[in-house]
Amino acid sequence: MTADAGGGQGGAYGQLEEIFRRHALICEAVGVLGWDTSVIMPPGGAVARAEQMATLRVMAHELVVDPRVGDLMTEAATEAVQLDRWQSANLREMRRAWLHATAVPADLVAARSHAAAAAEAAWRGARAESDFAALQPFLEEVLVLTREAGAAKAEALHRPAYDALMDEYEPDADGVRVVSILEDYAAFLPEFLDEVLAHQARQPDPVPPSGPFPIPAQRLLCRHMAETVGIDFDTARLDESLHPFSGGVPEDSRITTRYHDDGFVDSLMGVLHESGHAMYERGLPPAWRHQPVGDARGMTLHESQSLLVEMQVCRSREFFEWAAPVIAQTFAAEGPAWTPGNLHRLATRVEPSLIRVAADEVTYPAHVILRTRLERAMIAGDLPVADLPGAWGDGMVDLLGIRPPDDRQGCLQDIHWPDGDFGYFPTYSLGAMAAAQLAAAARAADPQIMPAIAKGDFGPLMAWLRPNVHNKASLLSTDELLVEATGKPLGADAFKAHLRRRYLAA
Amino acid sequence: MTADAGGGQGGAYGQLEEIFRRHALICEAVGVLGWDTSVIMPPGGAVARAEQMATLRVMAHELVVDPRVGDLMTEAATEAVQLDRWQSANLREMRRAWLHATAVPADLVAARSHAAAAAEAAWRGARAESDFAALQPFLEEVLVLTREAGAAKAEALHRPAYDALMDEYEPDADGVRVVSILEDYAAFLPEFLDEVLAHQARQPDPVPPSGPFPIPAQRLLCRHMAETVGIDFDTARLDESLHPFSGGVPEDSRITTRYHDDGFVDSLMGVLHESGHAMYERGLPPAWRHQPVGDARGMTLHESQSLLVEMQVCRSREFFEWAAPVIAQTFAAEGPAWTPGNLHRLATRVEPSLIRVAADEVTYPAHVILRTRLERAMIAGDLPVADLPGAWGDGMVDLLGIRPPDDRQGCLQDIHWPDGDFGYFPTYSLGAMAAAQLAAAARAADPQIMPAIAKGDFGPLMAWLRPNVHNKASLLSTDELLVEATGKPLGADAFKAHLRRRYLAA
Repeated sequence: MTADAGGGQGGAYGQLEEIFRRHALICEAVGVLGWDTSVIMPPGGAVARAEQMATLRVMAHELVVDPRVGDLMTEAATEAVQLDRWQSANLREMRRAWLHATAVPADLVAARSHAAAAAEAAWRGARAESDFAALQPFLEEVLVLTREAGAAKAEALHRPAYDALMDEYEPDADGVRVVSILEDYAAFLPEFLDEVLAHQARQPDPVPPSGPFPIPAQRLLCRHMAETVGIDFDTARLDESLHPFSGGVPEDSRITTRYHDDGFVDSLMGVLHESGHAMYERGLPPAWRHQPVGDARGMTLHESQSLLVEMQVCRSREFFEWAAPVIAQTFAAEGPAWTPGNLHRLATRVEPSLIRVAADEVTYPAHVILRTRLERAMIAGDLPVADLPGAWGDGMVDLLGIRPPDDRQGCLQDIHWPDGDFGYFPTYSLGAMAAAQLAAAARAADPQIMPAIAKGDFGPLMAWLRPNVHNKASLLSTDELLVEATGKPLGADAFKAHLRRRYLAA
Repeated sequence: MTADAGGGQGGAYGQLEEIFRRHALICEAVGVLGWDTSVIMPPGGAVARAEQMATLRVMAHELVVDPRVGDLMTEAATEAVQLDRWQSANLREMRRAWLHATAVPADLVAARSHAAAAAEAAWRGARAESDFAALQPFLEEVLVLTREAGAAKAEALHRPAYDALMDEYEPDADGVRVVSILEDYAAFLPEFLDEVLAHQARQPDPVPPSGPFPIPAQRLLCRHMAETVGIDFDTARLDESLHPFSGGVPEDSRITTRYHDDGFVDSLMGVLHESGHAMYERGLPPAWRHQPVGDARGMTLHESQSLLVEMQVCRSREFFEWAAPVIAQTFAAEGPAWTPGNLHRLATRVEPSLIRVAADEVTYPAHVILRTRLERAMIAGDLPVADLPGAWGDGMVDLLGIRPPDDRQGCLQDIHWPDGDFGYFPTYSLGAMAAAQLAAAARAADPQIMPAIAKGDFGPLMAWLRPNVHNKASLLSTDELLVEATGKPLGADAFKAHLRRRYLAA
């Protein structure tokens, strides 16, 4: 399909496909190096690895900013009558990548990559010691360079700097709309949370399963659960890293988690979450592999796929009907702690807490709202890095009424800012909202989805997600895809309805 | 040091350093992808990985063949008065890389990379099934492309095709001299082998330690032994792969081995061998990191460092004085099988056999001589791939008097040819000869080296190797380095003397 597109490989469009194919393959190589860095690499390798990754990133960047690419885009646009729907969308996504790349000079790209690698290394130490001062100068450097990049992108995309930064993660993201959705939830949360906590207090307390939960058993359980979602370990790996993530390529998914022998719910739910990400990648159309239009649409939809699996499905009562006996058998356990009802109550326990990745789905958006407020202020130049710990603490008190006792449980908990990822956080909660919207549409379209989940069968769910989300790749905008799949653009209604049903109706 | 070399970064030499630095970093990234492929990657990832690696290799290739590089070399040569000894050698090595790269067109480089990836995958299956027919078409494709590359290099380097191919692994290798050294050993071997076997028959048979030898215990033992050689696991990893190798970068060595619970000697000696390779890389001069002159000199010297550690040192009686109790303790064993003398007899047992990597050091060169004869014939066009199994069997009978019962134990045992590595095999035995020569010079220079080994102390050995071999990187030719370190160019005398002393004198 792609080889003869746009008047043959000699045509402008065909040449662009060749360039972007090479770009994609370099980025995949960077992904392997990044996985290795997080999972495998001995500490001594950090400096050399940062240089390797920076070099590849610069080379990928140079491919796209080559003046020839701009000319080819202009030419390809005049060939546009010959392009089909996917090719036109591909050209649109090439242009987006080109705008992002040409906006920022190569030396700034390299400087950001170096600064992020140094800050990430510093963060690992600072987080372990709860020593913000050890991170501060590195994070300041990252912020200076990110603001520079943001200003350059703002000019190129004719959008505010924060929106322009967000566009890399969530194409066409509109900061005003994002803030309005998030702040709407911030306004909704206090009263709703009180209701949830009051309702929860009237239910029987969940019985905590008693550990320890041996890590080898947890590994087997997580592997089995990932397979149940649809992961095939001929095309995937499950490993361990400090900060769980899902990487790799569609034919070689790299899921990571972390285990502690005093609990199994977080690791298990983490693996189910990352399995949702991996299933999305696995379902992308092979015909458009290595082309921009063949990529996942953006982080909102990506997160919607992980949260649909984890939150919508695997924290449901139906899922535990099937999963509870499997889990109990894993740990050779029995008794009232191991019933479907009890494990479901445990997995849907709501409690305001300090750590984002351990937060329940009701309070999770508060963590995102805090970070969004702070990173918008940092990008705007209104919040110096030195003031971050204080602002963090005040923000937590404002949103959830609790203050972290140290920075490890505060502004040192996430890797994103040291890594230079500003504008990424909102997509977690936008993803939760998209997940609720898609799950409602899926259940309406096929009433057998949840009964199948109650039997450990994810087939009907994936059968709906594949054509409606996965196979669409970047053909449509996030909103267009949601309208086609659910009848509505992205909104918070389905999410709020889901929360009310799960946390107030039971 | 390198930044201001050759009249500053703006000078021709300085610009070449920048280009070759980028080249080196891409090659390092390819190395990480290769390690991942062999150790970690799920099978589904093979096609995408081959595309990633081919793309990076093509990009590295394009850097060096850029017409600008030829011009800069000419310019840099006129600046040559300003270059110091290391810089001049660096320019010489840049020219070698440039000659190799410009000799072969980019599409042939990509085709070889693709064909090798496909053949390697086919080889894994064919070897497991002992099914040469499953490999044959893939190997034929690799050979066709390698002969094309050889012809192109022959023209560029004004040397015979086989020599030109060898030059990539062993710079300045002279095929006539290589063959004369190897065939000299082929002539020496029959009578010497008879003497060794007769002498061995007069000694008490070694007592085989009784297994099983649990793999977790072997892992710990191998790790401890690698540390004893000098490996620091803050800058190294030890993993498992079908075909053991040593990769990575000086600050992040990646050693692999394979374990079987019915024996521990092969795995242990394999790890010691790869540790010798890794110590060489670790000892390269950091000031010349990422420059051609900072690389290891060639595969002869590389193999000399692994064989010096494994064969010269770790199969010595002295080493087992220290190692035998450590090994016995690992397996909680005692008795006559675990004495230094018995373990030493086991580790120096001579017995003609079919598998190169399991061969003793007396018969190992026969395996190399066979492969050298066959690959020279294949490159010359005198041996079709279809005739390889037969020629292999006849060659084994000629050299060692044994015929493999199947191709798994014959021409399917090595990864090199499927990988496109023709001209590599001779360096194993040239390396064994260089190892003997260097070890003799080291022992003469510091009589404390072997007594220290008998205490598990590799410090004095490494203290001699570092300035005499490791730190020299590619400053000198292999022969120049050997003359400086041992007083003589490469030859077989020291190796024969070593074999006579070890196998006839005891």
